[in-house]
Amino acid sequence: MDIQIRTDLALETRESFEGTNVEIKGVVLEEEKRCDDSIKVTRVIIKNREGAAAMRKPIGTYITLEAEKLRDDVSDSNLSGIALELSRYIRELLPVMQNGKILIAGLGNKDATPDSLGPETIERIQVTRNFNEFYGENGWEISCIAPGVMAKTGMESMEIIKGIADQINPDVVIAIDALAARNAKRLNTTIQLTDTGINPGSGVGNHRKGLTKETIGVPVVAIGIPTVVDVATIVRDIMDNLIEMFSIRDEYKELTDGEQYQFIKEITSPEIRTLYVTPKDIDEDINVLGFILSEALNNIWKKTE
Amino acid sequence: MDIQIRTDLALETRESFEGTNVEIKGVVLEEEKRCDDSIKVTRVIIKNREGAAAMRKPIGTYITLEAEKLRDDVSDSNLSGIALELSRYIRELLPVMQNGKILIAGLGNKDATPDSLGPETIERIQVTRNFNEFYGENGWEISCIAPGVMAKTGMESMEIIKGIADQINPDVVIAIDALAARNAKRLNTTIQLTDTGINPGSGVGNHRKGLTKETIGVPVVAIGIPTVVDVATIVRDIMDNLIEMFSIRDEYKELTDGEQYQFIKEITSPEIRTLYVTPKDIDEDINVLGFILSEALNNIWKKTE
Amino acid sequence: MDIQIRTDLALETRESFEGTNVEIKGVVLEEEKRCDDSIKVTRVIIKNREGAAAMRKPIGTYITLEAEKLRDDVSDSNLSGIALELSRYIRELLPVMQNGKILIAGLGNKDATPDSLGPETIERIQVTRNFNEFYGENGWEISCIAPGVMAKTGMESMEIIKGIADQINPDVVIAIDALAARNAKRLNTTIQLTDTGINPGSGVGNHRKGLTKETIGVPVVAIGIPTVVDVATIVRDIMDNLIEMFSIRDEYKELTDGEQYQFIKEITSPEIRTLYVTPKDIDEDINVLGFILSEALNNIWKKTE
Amino acid sequence: MDIQIRTDLALETRESFEGTNVEIKGVVLEEEKRCDDSIKVTRVIIKNREGAAAMRKPIGTYITLEAEKLRDDVSDSNLSGIALELSRYIRELLPVMQNGKILIAGLGNKDATPDSLGPETIERIQVTRNFNEFYGENGWEISCIAPGVMAKTGMESMEIIKGIADQINPDVVIAIDALAARNAKRLNTTIQLTDTGINPGSGVGNHRKGLTKETIGVPVVAIGIPTVVDVATIVRDIMDNLIEMFSIRDEYKELTDGEQYQFIKEITSPEIRTLYVTPKDIDEDINVLGFILSEALNNIWKKTE
Repeated sequence: MDIQIRTDLALETRESFEGTNVEIKGVVLEEEKRCDDSIKVTRVIIKNREGAAAMRKPIGTYITLEAEKLRDDVSDSNLSGIALELSRYIRELLPVMQNGKILIAGLGNKDATPDSLGPETIERIQVTRNFNEFYGENGWEISCIAPGVMAKTGMESMEIIKGIADQINPDVVIAIDALAARNAKRLNTTIQLTDTGINPGSGVGNHRKGLTKETIGVPVVAIGIPTVVDVATIVRDIMDNLIEMFSIRDEYKELTDGEQYQFIKEITSPEIRTLYVTPKDIDEDINVLGFILSEALNNIWKKTE
Repeated sequence: MDIQIRTDLALETRESFEGTNVEIKGVVLEEEKRCDDSIKVTRVIIKNREGAAAMRKPIGTYITLEAEKLRDDVSDSNLSGIALELSRYIRELLPVMQNGKILIAGLGNKDATPDSLGPETIERIQVTRNFNEFYGENGWEISCIAPGVMAKTGMESMEIIKGIADQINPDVVIAIDALAARNAKRLNTTIQLTDTGINPGSGVGNHRKGLTKETIGVPVVAIGIPTVVDVATIVRDIMDNLIEMFSIRDEYKELTDGEQYQFIKEITSPEIRTLYVTPKDIDEDINVLGFILSEALNNIWKKTE
Repeated sequence: MDIQIRTDLALETRESFEGTNVEIKGVVLEEEKRCDDSIKVTRVIIKNREGAAAMRKPIGTYITLEAEKLRDDVSDSNLSGIALELSRYIRELLPVMQNGKILIAGLGNKDATPDSLGPETIERIQVTRNFNEFYGENGWEISCIAPGVMAKTGMESMEIIKGIADQINPDVVIAIDALAARNAKRLNTTIQLTDTGINPGSGVGNHRKGLTKETIGVPVVAIGIPTVVDVATIVRDIMDNLIEMFSIRDEYKELTDGEQYQFIKEITSPEIRTLYVTPKDIDEDINVLGFILSEALNNIWKKTE
Repeated sequence: MDIQIRTDLALETRESFEGTNVEIKGVVLEEEKRCDDSIKVTRVIIKNREGAAAMRKPIGTYITLEAEKLRDDVSDSNLSGIALELSRYIRELLPVMQNGKILIAGLGNKDATPDSLGPETIERIQVTRNFNEFYGENGWEISCIAPGVMAKTGMESMEIIKGIADQINPDVVIAIDALAARNAKRLNTTIQLTDTGINPGSGVGNHRKGLTKETIGVPVVAIGIPTVVDVATIVRDIMDNLIEMFSIRDEYKELTDGEQYQFIKEITSPEIRTLYVTPKDIDEDINVLGFILSEALNNIWKKTE
């Protein structure tokens, strides 16, 4: 009952409550459709401590865009359409900015394809801070960094970004990261935005220290896309299929959602636990998603000018 | 009983027979230890049609090096030691060569880390064919190619390599490929060599057309390392743990190995079936393995000169 | 007088004749402007042996697009506009195709930025040959290959492409290559198309064996962009400035264009001769040019469908 | 006379004085040979303001290793030998360290081959800071970062490194950078070490803000290798050849070294001025040099343990 269910998506945490229609105190749920109903947008707002305790996530807004069409249609026009929607929701989460200074951080390991979403996006961001410095312009100041991963730098992403933020004083940090999902059908089709930043333990690389307003000193908007599911999640899906076919003993049926997950983790051998599960053509997915995210981010300051 | 078990390793096929001591007609099994017992070498020789039918693999020799130490010790001296052993076994499988002409082919997708073993290895091969052409030397003629994957080139690896082989007339093609294993503990620690080439359906990318003496026109020695396991395999491992804990109905227990595997595949939802399972730090593993393979291959012609 | 002037651009060879208005027998020169005069298109048609001897280039058509705007405007709309024009001229040079089968070859070294234009373009080509094979479609069959460079493969690009072409029987090969220009202001703004293929000695990597209908067996359309100038060219430009300022002895003034070039090559020390000259931000240029070329090529079969 | 001569090498500045035997006040020159005379080591020590004014470089030690053998012998044993020597000289320049904490910064643009020395080196550094954090060890704490270039991040390298240094408090920063040389024969064979850091305007990318003890807050040891020469330098070399062959008017002969350089810069057209000159096989050189530097740096803490 007290067991933490591993998912980076607020949407999946919300779904784990018995019915999606059950009201949770302190949590508001809003849904809308966009782009001829091809994008389903869910807004989970955790309003107070009670909601945060129930959801086991910080107070704040979590917007999820589900674009299943992404699986089949990667035409420029479809991708640009999604990017445009996305930039609208990103702007919704940005704080009031005094100077229009944004530091975009692409988290993750550029050399491990499923974890390379952040660095891949950063490659296509159009920075402007350098022009402002040269020409004394007074527009948006975009800068970006791919901090790399601890195994290669010896440092937490948080330390690097905090250090840079202290130097250049952005109004906001936008952090992009590859996430883990519980549900395989969400892989590479669901985008989560939140104004609560990145919390410890989340992301494919399992950041040990979070990127939040508390650690960085300025608001952090996080953009995440699940590119992997962990092995225990896969097994759990299969168990759900199995219990109908076998006469599983009653205890299992009576376990809570979290307990079942923990149980499966226990019967999973250690070699398997450190593995992750990802699509065979992950490089093409990352390429498409990096395009969408960079388009959306490049749009933010273009459109508001 | 007739169900094909998915593994690229002859060793694993052999193990799937009820006891490893059972003799299979037409199949010879030899084992030895190397490097202070840190490398276990298994030679499976399929001698005739009877053995080929039992093993569901072509007649030929399959040498497997298991180097579990690779998990913990990636010092230069350990890696060079393994490379030296490896080059000895590769030489064992090379045909008698009239001209010492070798074409090395690094199969797989350079942009999807678990499938990038072949291209990564090719990057470090020291080619010599160009020098021979310039200086009229008469030594080994090494050339190499990374043919890419069908989704990006529109062509089978086989077609590209066949075409090149027809142009440059090598004595042998050595093909390097990332494989799928059934047993997660073999990931990135087991190296399989075979003089039977690469057969249709094998490899992470599931080559549709094989690379064999029949298709290429010259002998093909294949070097493969399992870098992924497929999802059904993971589930099967877990089922083995489960049946002891639950009163699974008798039918399941009575299923053969292959039938159990097929059964699990059936209860696995389609979204999951196209996924693969790979270690979190796969980029570091590929780096280490690419070093070992290229060292071993570069050694072949250096040492025999 | 007999000295070969090093330039890969027919346009520059043509300019080296004393006045551009002088008529050369067997050579037709046509000019037009496109895109609101922002692109200057020059068509040099070498009609017979006499023209070929004068131009020291094979009989055929050479179309040059000069888009100086590329220096300042890299907006998507400008790049797409250039790509659209380009695809029109590429189609003009394609032979009559029985099956619509095209093999696109991206020549050059992906790891040396100024020589990476070909491989960079290939990365973004949408291949279709694999779909035709799967679905039995009857449309255009696009496949592509980046053959790498001899220092890394041990093989000529020609050998690899010839081998592949023999396997898949394309109607035409389109080869993309980084070129050397004589005039620094042409760097990364001029695109040359020709139906004569790639001739020995051309390209940044100085292909020793050409890619032509004779060597490959099917027509070869070459697309080249100068991304480097060689050092002797730079020096020659400067000499032109110098002779007005110094009392250079008369002999120099009386040298022909080619003799002056050779003279400068002689006074240039060997260390310098193997160097090339390229812009500081060459990676951004290659990125932009790879986008334009891939867009143009992807357009070819989309628009004609 | 007052014109700044563009070279990042103290050795070349020293050579520009009329004879290398002339004593310059405040500047000490020491030479030694290493590795069977295959490496020439020159130590230029600028002792006071007078020396700094004469050399136009900050007070400090500049050690130059010239290893011409690098051109011909890239065997592992030769490269490891050079790396071992190099690590000895790097240690000589390190300050007394209280905690053995080193931040290694690989400056430059990973996507433009001649400027990619720093990032390429960083790829192979073995970091240890993360292990110390996990296991509470008390050994050397190595961390590293490739800050990227301003055109892509919007930030100065200095800002990023200063920010990180403030977070992790290293005892010293070691900065690796690709340099510009005046003499083409120094390309990719000369390594300069200095305890004065990196000064504004140096490096291929022309850092606008320096990395020094003043800007970063801790001592900065810089390791640089010239991978490009600028065009004006090339021209100047050729002018030296020309003046013997032509009757250049007397004024030119009477110009000082710096004035001649400036003169040539003036007669060089703007298109040419932004170009750089680099070897054709720069990618192989960078690969070799990145190996040497990373080996040398990885040796530092291994050998002193």
